[in-house]
Amino acid sequence: MIDTTPSNASLRARVYWWLERPDNDAKGPRLLDIALIILIILNVTAVILETVDSLYFRWQQAFDIFEAISLTIFVIEYLARLWVAPENPHIKSRFKWATSPIAIIDLLAILPALLYLFIPIDLRILRTFRMLRLLKLTRYSPALGMLLAVFEEESGAFFAGFFILSLMLIFAASGAWLAEHEAQPDAFGSIPAAMWWAVATLTTVGYGDVTPITVAGKIFGAIITVVGIGMAALPAGIIASGLNEQIHRRRASLEREFRKALEDGEICDKEEEDIEALRKELGLSHTTAKHIREIVHSESQAKDQRCPHCGKSLIKCDDQ
Amino acid sequence: MIDTTPSNASLRARVYWWLERPDNDAKGPRLLDIALIILIILNVTAVILETVDSLYFRWQQAFDIFEAISLTIFVIEYLARLWVAPENPHIKSRFKWATSPIAIIDLLAILPALLYLFIPIDLRILRTFRMLRLLKLTRYSPALGMLLAVFEEESGAFFAGFFILSLMLIFAASGAWLAEHEAQPDAFGSIPAAMWWAVATLTTVGYGDVTPITVAGKIFGAIITVVGIGMAALPAGIIASGLNEQIHRRRASLEREFRKALEDGEICDKEEEDIEALRKELGLSHTTAKHIREIVHSESQAKDQRCPHCGKSLIKCDDQ
Amino acid sequence: MIDTTPSNASLRARVYWWLERPDNDAKGPRLLDIALIILIILNVTAVILETVDSLYFRWQQAFDIFEAISLTIFVIEYLARLWVAPENPHIKSRFKWATSPIAIIDLLAILPALLYLFIPIDLRILRTFRMLRLLKLTRYSPALGMLLAVFEEESGAFFAGFFILSLMLIFAASGAWLAEHEAQPDAFGSIPAAMWWAVATLTTVGYGDVTPITVAGKIFGAIITVVGIGMAALPAGIIASGLNEQIHRRRASLEREFRKALEDGEICDKEEEDIEALRKELGLSHTTAKHIREIVHSESQAKDQRCPHCGKSLIKCDDQ
Amino acid sequence: MIDTTPSNASLRARVYWWLERPDNDAKGPRLLDIALIILIILNVTAVILETVDSLYFRWQQAFDIFEAISLTIFVIEYLARLWVAPENPHIKSRFKWATSPIAIIDLLAILPALLYLFIPIDLRILRTFRMLRLLKLTRYSPALGMLLAVFEEESGAFFAGFFILSLMLIFAASGAWLAEHEAQPDAFGSIPAAMWWAVATLTTVGYGDVTPITVAGKIFGAIITVVGIGMAALPAGIIASGLNEQIHRRRASLEREFRKALEDGEICDKEEEDIEALRKELGLSHTTAKHIREIVHSESQAKDQRCPHCGKSLIKCDDQ
Repeated sequence: MIDTTPSNASLRARVYWWLERPDNDAKGPRLLDIALIILIILNVTAVILETVDSLYFRWQQAFDIFEAISLTIFVIEYLARLWVAPENPHIKSRFKWATSPIAIIDLLAILPALLYLFIPIDLRILRTFRMLRLLKLTRYSPALGMLLAVFEEESGAFFAGFFILSLMLIFAASGAWLAEHEAQPDAFGSIPAAMWWAVATLTTVGYGDVTPITVAGKIFGAIITVVGIGMAALPAGIIASGLNEQIHRRRASLEREFRKALEDGEICDKEEEDIEALRKELGLSHTTAKHIREIVHSESQAKDQRCPHCGKSLIKCDDQ
Repeated sequence: MIDTTPSNASLRARVYWWLERPDNDAKGPRLLDIALIILIILNVTAVILETVDSLYFRWQQAFDIFEAISLTIFVIEYLARLWVAPENPHIKSRFKWATSPIAIIDLLAILPALLYLFIPIDLRILRTFRMLRLLKLTRYSPALGMLLAVFEEESGAFFAGFFILSLMLIFAASGAWLAEHEAQPDAFGSIPAAMWWAVATLTTVGYGDVTPITVAGKIFGAIITVVGIGMAALPAGIIASGLNEQIHRRRASLEREFRKALEDGEICDKEEEDIEALRKELGLSHTTAKHIREIVHSESQAKDQRCPHCGKSLIKCDDQ
Repeated sequence: MIDTTPSNASLRARVYWWLERPDNDAKGPRLLDIALIILIILNVTAVILETVDSLYFRWQQAFDIFEAISLTIFVIEYLARLWVAPENPHIKSRFKWATSPIAIIDLLAILPALLYLFIPIDLRILRTFRMLRLLKLTRYSPALGMLLAVFEEESGAFFAGFFILSLMLIFAASGAWLAEHEAQPDAFGSIPAAMWWAVATLTTVGYGDVTPITVAGKIFGAIITVVGIGMAALPAGIIASGLNEQIHRRRASLEREFRKALEDGEICDKEEEDIEALRKELGLSHTTAKHIREIVHSESQAKDQRCPHCGKSLIKCDDQ
Repeated sequence: MIDTTPSNASLRARVYWWLERPDNDAKGPRLLDIALIILIILNVTAVILETVDSLYFRWQQAFDIFEAISLTIFVIEYLARLWVAPENPHIKSRFKWATSPIAIIDLLAILPALLYLFIPIDLRILRTFRMLRLLKLTRYSPALGMLLAVFEEESGAFFAGFFILSLMLIFAASGAWLAEHEAQPDAFGSIPAAMWWAVATLTTVGYGDVTPITVAGKIFGAIITVVGIGMAALPAGIIASGLNEQIHRRRASLEREFRKALEDGEICDKEEEDIEALRKELGLSHTTAKHIREIVHSESQAKDQRCPHCGKSLIKCDDQ
């Protein structure tokens, strides 16, 4: 449209350029991305609205037509991405692309609908699985990539947090069952039944549909709640703390790049481009980058002045 | 009153000096600020009390008079600030001031009341919008500025957090609808209806007005709650972590200023003033500043003493 | 008892030594402290149990005797502390001690009971104020001192957090009033009434005694809840982050002390004592101190090896 | 099975090798560990399912046989671990092992069941204590060790957090009792009774089974809730912040090890092994280790290049 793809390129290379946006700032591919994002959001909205009886029965045909069109587009998108996979210098093989998490999400987004073309059982229930199309949005969010990196990075601490939470849940349910199963045989008749109360309590949701009524149950419930809230908040704390760490680390990466670029006294255009590319890859904001630049600059100036023994500058030593 | 504005200044410059407090410690403008803060708080209190029928019908006239006076003052304040905008060296043009967030808040604080002078429909409902005057307080809180900077800075991670939360909400509502829509057609009749339960659960509010009652619904609800609490706490965690980062950064800025000032061995009066101005601008407490000063001092002394072999100081090397 | 107070000291100095524990490790004063802590806990337990009718009417006399004894001890303690205040080198004047927070707490712990000796109105209600004796425990917790320092230090951010929370509460209550005051005139009849729902929702308590029932109210409630949870968690996040900062700072103080002590290559006995005293004052654990010691040691060894130009050691330069 | 234990070793040494996995990567002991983990999980599942009447009465015999087998295995495991304890170079004496936390957990896992062999009172209730076998899993989680270290390390701040929480709970219950005990003599009849409301409110659980109904009670409840949520979240904040600190510290330990290894310019195979062993001991992920390696490498290169005037490297200064 606005940009021209390299005209001497093969068709596959041109489709790759449109779909995978190797060139971050090209306008055409960016518009295509936005169109796909809007289509995904419309799809999810349609799935949600279809569950409202009054809307569904009135607009059933419109919903069906929209689904047919969407499905066609997503199938074409999947096949096209599969076809152009070898163009990507990091991936090369189609099999490697098809087994990557992002490709599996793409497949899950079309598979249930394709299945239902052949086995048309209980239409509306199966249609809910089209909700998985929402996951296709992960492709477009660099900050989400950061969060996923946090989960991967902190998986050890995270698992430990969930393990402690499970211990607390089982212990709370057992105690509540012991204290309450005679007074309330319906709600606390077995440990699995008491688990519903334990989950609602330790996560601090506290519906109040089931609460201990015996004195022993209330005392146990109070103690386990006070002790447990710290435990239940652990996974959240671990994510937040890991996110903090991740941001620090990415900032440190950008800072090192700035330092390297500044070693010869100035940041040339090529270096600016590299830094900008790294900033985008790391999902850091312009404000952050600007701030890091300032710190590195002020430090390098400080070093200039501090020059110790011989009285010469440490950095601009080449013109001596 | 107590201070005298520079008498040789133009009227506009004098109004500017009173309204915008370029001179942080002048007593007169500070009293004017306090008067305006009290007026804002009284206004909001009036709006709140007006919704109490017994108070409103008894004191209706007093409320009306108070509103008329307040509105007049706020209109005058807005026009005066617009008039003196060119005096501000950072802004200069009136248009630039009028489109700044703080000016838009000032406008929103008077606009609904002005509209209602001309279209007097349903008085009390429209009056609620005077609540927006509360936002005028943001002008007076340096720490609030820090929080807003955090939102701006961490907007990427913040958006990612809300995106994950939305995913979780839609997923939770879909699952609850699948499990419960037959048993409870009122509360879980559609995904939008189930969303009310999903919001109350994932934010851990847990009213308990709507809870799953089927076994499948309870199992799904328990799992989604345990998994979801970490997600729902993400935005809070991101803000807290960003605030931490922001405070560190501002402390580092002040520390750099201290170091620069100390490079010649002493902090002179001019430097003290600059540091104090920066401290105020950054919204840091006196205790923090004092602590940073101590660290920088002890470090510079350490460096002084550490000078090794030659017995000379590493820093004051210029007199060699 | 076990230790002997300096026998040549005045009576006041001896009482001071017993009450204020200037010498941290003396056994006698430590036992006195523990006795006072137990007395405080027994007092609070008594206040709690007195509110149980069956216990109060049966043991009324025992409660009264215990209160009389406790009050006498606390009055004597207060007068004694007031008397010995001039012995404290940091305080010196009795007036300065009497106006310190810890002395005001001591006074509040005895004042209501003394008042009730003269104006014996509604005994049991007034007795609840003896609960304030609980605050006397703050004297004995170094870690609590750290938390109070955090509150003081972060008061700016803390105020900002509460300010935002207040904005959210007023805004939430106004919106809920607008949406629900016709459907539920009892629970949402005025903004102050709607505030009860707003507090329960934004703090994620969610009793469920009052919930929106109109569609508009539910949509508004859902949005304000999702947006608001991040805000309501701000004060907690600020405290946690400030506590982190405070611990870092205190560790840095201890680290500086270690570094100073290590500058001459070894930590002598006198230096060990100083470090131990600082560790206690800062409320840091032995594990932390041990860890800091290891880091500083390993760093100083690293520096030994890294010696740059002349090939000589930077630290052990005195024997050259 | 797959690996061969050193055949010339004594039987005790061989059992030690199988049970305590001194050699981290041996396949046989690892399979034994996994078998024991599965047995623990099956046991806990059995305890949970036994509380469901329909399952218990139908499969009673199967449950009994499974318990008999499990108990035998755990008793053998305990005795075997006790027997091989002297093989462990860090422990040596059997008594020292038997009094270690992990051994006490092992004992608690078998003791209730052994007791019940001799005093067979109320079978199902006593059986719940077999739940303690869940704690045996702590042996297998390195990340859990990190969490326990956090609890130990931050115990001071943690105790302070719980102390403040207790103060808040007692204060909240007292205030609610004062405001509500006349209107609701059942739920707020005494301070201990009001404590149930206080716990549910300050932990933000908010069941809603008991809520203030008087105006005074609602105002007090709202204020205490807003003030209290920050306090109640303190323990969670302290754990999260301590975990952050702990991870930082462990990373710093690994970083120091990397630096030491890199001082001679390269990391040899022996050093790689040491680093890998330390990484495992510290419970850090491969990703973290890789990241630390990159930072240390890039720093050491930077130092190499930065060498100023003389053109010589700062680090490899020994060949001068």
